[in-house]
Amino acid sequence: MKVLITGGAGFIGSNLAQRLIHEGHRVRVFDNFSTGQERFLDAVRQAPNFELLRGDLLDPAAITAATDGVDLVVHLAANADVRFGTEHPRRDLEQNTIGTFHVLEAMRTTGVRRIAFASTGSIYGEPEVFPTPEDAPFPVQTSLYGASKLAGEGLIEAYCEGFGFQAWIFRFVSILGEHYSHGHVFDFYRKLLINPGELEVLGDGHQRKSYLYVQDCIDAMRLAIERADHRVNIFNLGADEYCEVNDSVRWICEELGVRPRLRYTGGIRGWVGDSPFIFLDTRRIRSLGWTPKLSIRDAVVRTLRYLRANPWLLEARA
Amino acid sequence: MKVLITGGAGFIGSNLAQRLIHEGHRVRVFDNFSTGQERFLDAVRQAPNFELLRGDLLDPAAITAATDGVDLVVHLAANADVRFGTEHPRRDLEQNTIGTFHVLEAMRTTGVRRIAFASTGSIYGEPEVFPTPEDAPFPVQTSLYGASKLAGEGLIEAYCEGFGFQAWIFRFVSILGEHYSHGHVFDFYRKLLINPGELEVLGDGHQRKSYLYVQDCIDAMRLAIERADHRVNIFNLGADEYCEVNDSVRWICEELGVRPRLRYTGGIRGWVGDSPFIFLDTRRIRSLGWTPKLSIRDAVVRTLRYLRANPWLLEARA
Repeated sequence: MKVLITGGAGFIGSNLAQRLIHEGHRVRVFDNFSTGQERFLDAVRQAPNFELLRGDLLDPAAITAATDGVDLVVHLAANADVRFGTEHPRRDLEQNTIGTFHVLEAMRTTGVRRIAFASTGSIYGEPEVFPTPEDAPFPVQTSLYGASKLAGEGLIEAYCEGFGFQAWIFRFVSILGEHYSHGHVFDFYRKLLINPGELEVLGDGHQRKSYLYVQDCIDAMRLAIERADHRVNIFNLGADEYCEVNDSVRWICEELGVRPRLRYTGGIRGWVGDSPFIFLDTRRIRSLGWTPKLSIRDAVVRTLRYLRANPWLLEARA
Repeated sequence: MKVLITGGAGFIGSNLAQRLIHEGHRVRVFDNFSTGQERFLDAVRQAPNFELLRGDLLDPAAITAATDGVDLVVHLAANADVRFGTEHPRRDLEQNTIGTFHVLEAMRTTGVRRIAFASTGSIYGEPEVFPTPEDAPFPVQTSLYGASKLAGEGLIEAYCEGFGFQAWIFRFVSILGEHYSHGHVFDFYRKLLINPGELEVLGDGHQRKSYLYVQDCIDAMRLAIERADHRVNIFNLGADEYCEVNDSVRWICEELGVRPRLRYTGGIRGWVGDSPFIFLDTRRIRSLGWTPKLSIRDAVVRTLRYLRANPWLLEARA
């Protein structure tokens, strides 16, 4: 199988590239390196079945050329910065919604019909049902990021109906693991490096969140694409548990051997659009035989160890 | 109250302008006249509290100028052509999704915080619950039009959360009545004028659809904006009944006094993305005291009489 991974130099994309190359597939990575990292591709760069294209989703010619000749597009490229959406509303629209449209049009032009898409649990807004299933009540969006991913899902579904595409849509919780380069573990670790005596925690620390280890995430994506054969296949991906931000803070501090004074910014949300409780129902993907191998705690610790072993990443993302 | 109506020279917009002017409000219409009609504004053009601005939603400066100084934006401008979405996928994205984004950014720039939005029952795709309530299970999109309106809703909701906007989102069934200028009554009437002996019906004629008379629609919108005071207020708007396409064909033929041979194109859908059953649960708007005054049959007949009395419209929309 020949696979195009948009955002293939990013966190999840580079791990997926590695896995697919290892399995013997041909992989083409398309990335603009706005947040992707050259070094994330070190393990695959020399492989004969690997190809790297530098380009931007907002350049239709570039993404069309990248799509040509592949069997499957795994569309991961996105502005994944949930928290600062209100500072630049255009970014989510352009990079996520319009970017996805360009991928779909490129596929239509080149005759590629299969797409896997990284969506988000944020799409459920602030749901009333927990764990939240894929067919939860019609959600109300609370972030520009969620809105842009919702728009991407809708476009993909319409292309499935209108142009005979087949899609696998994955609604992720926050992913942890190797090549992780933004999110709360990253932020806490950086803050504690600077000042191990105090840690600012956004919100009241009681926000409940679910996470998933990146290799578990990739297992699930691989399995779903292989086994689920509807026209539109939608899967929640997350751990079968959640933790409080305070739990995560404790695990991080234990691992680092620090005992900072905690300073909460207050409120049940860490920022505008922050969902105080994210916990997805994953029975659908589990029914295919998938189960995550790492607990949230183990995934947090593993992520922290990865960051400690790769100090270059803190500089690159400074 | 000073109200900006985008698409105010269109079918619903021009009726709304007339109503608001009549009630003594100040009305500013913004329209690019791509499908809007000068003559739809004949009843309001001379009113001192009426103002017309020609402009396009894709021109941020024009829509920003139009938004300045109003208390409420009623955003109706859109590509409302559901059926031909697959012939020009970019049109729904640009005119509906990106257009809505420009309206929101214009409002943010000018400090306007209240928006009413024309969404659609098509957003439910092919639902499994009938009548379909506002909190139906998370839908899968089946048309580019539905996808573009879903994206618009999501953007508006995110602006409510992120920027303190307040929104009224209306999910319409097909609207009928004065100034109606596209849809099945229009198509059937035009075909029967050309050939009263035969009528081509898209699909098998058993598609079940709900409709609403435009004045009933405007009553509902006025009431909801006045009475519903959540941050995000979402309302289905439709009749409390549905009919088959065949019923509508019969009413039209009776009114015209023709007995054409019916020729069905077959299939449960009239076209790609056509939903074979649309019937919305309107308990939410009814709980505010609204009830439609015209039956679907009366609305169809009234629409047909309007078209017969206004032959210029068939030419204008040819």
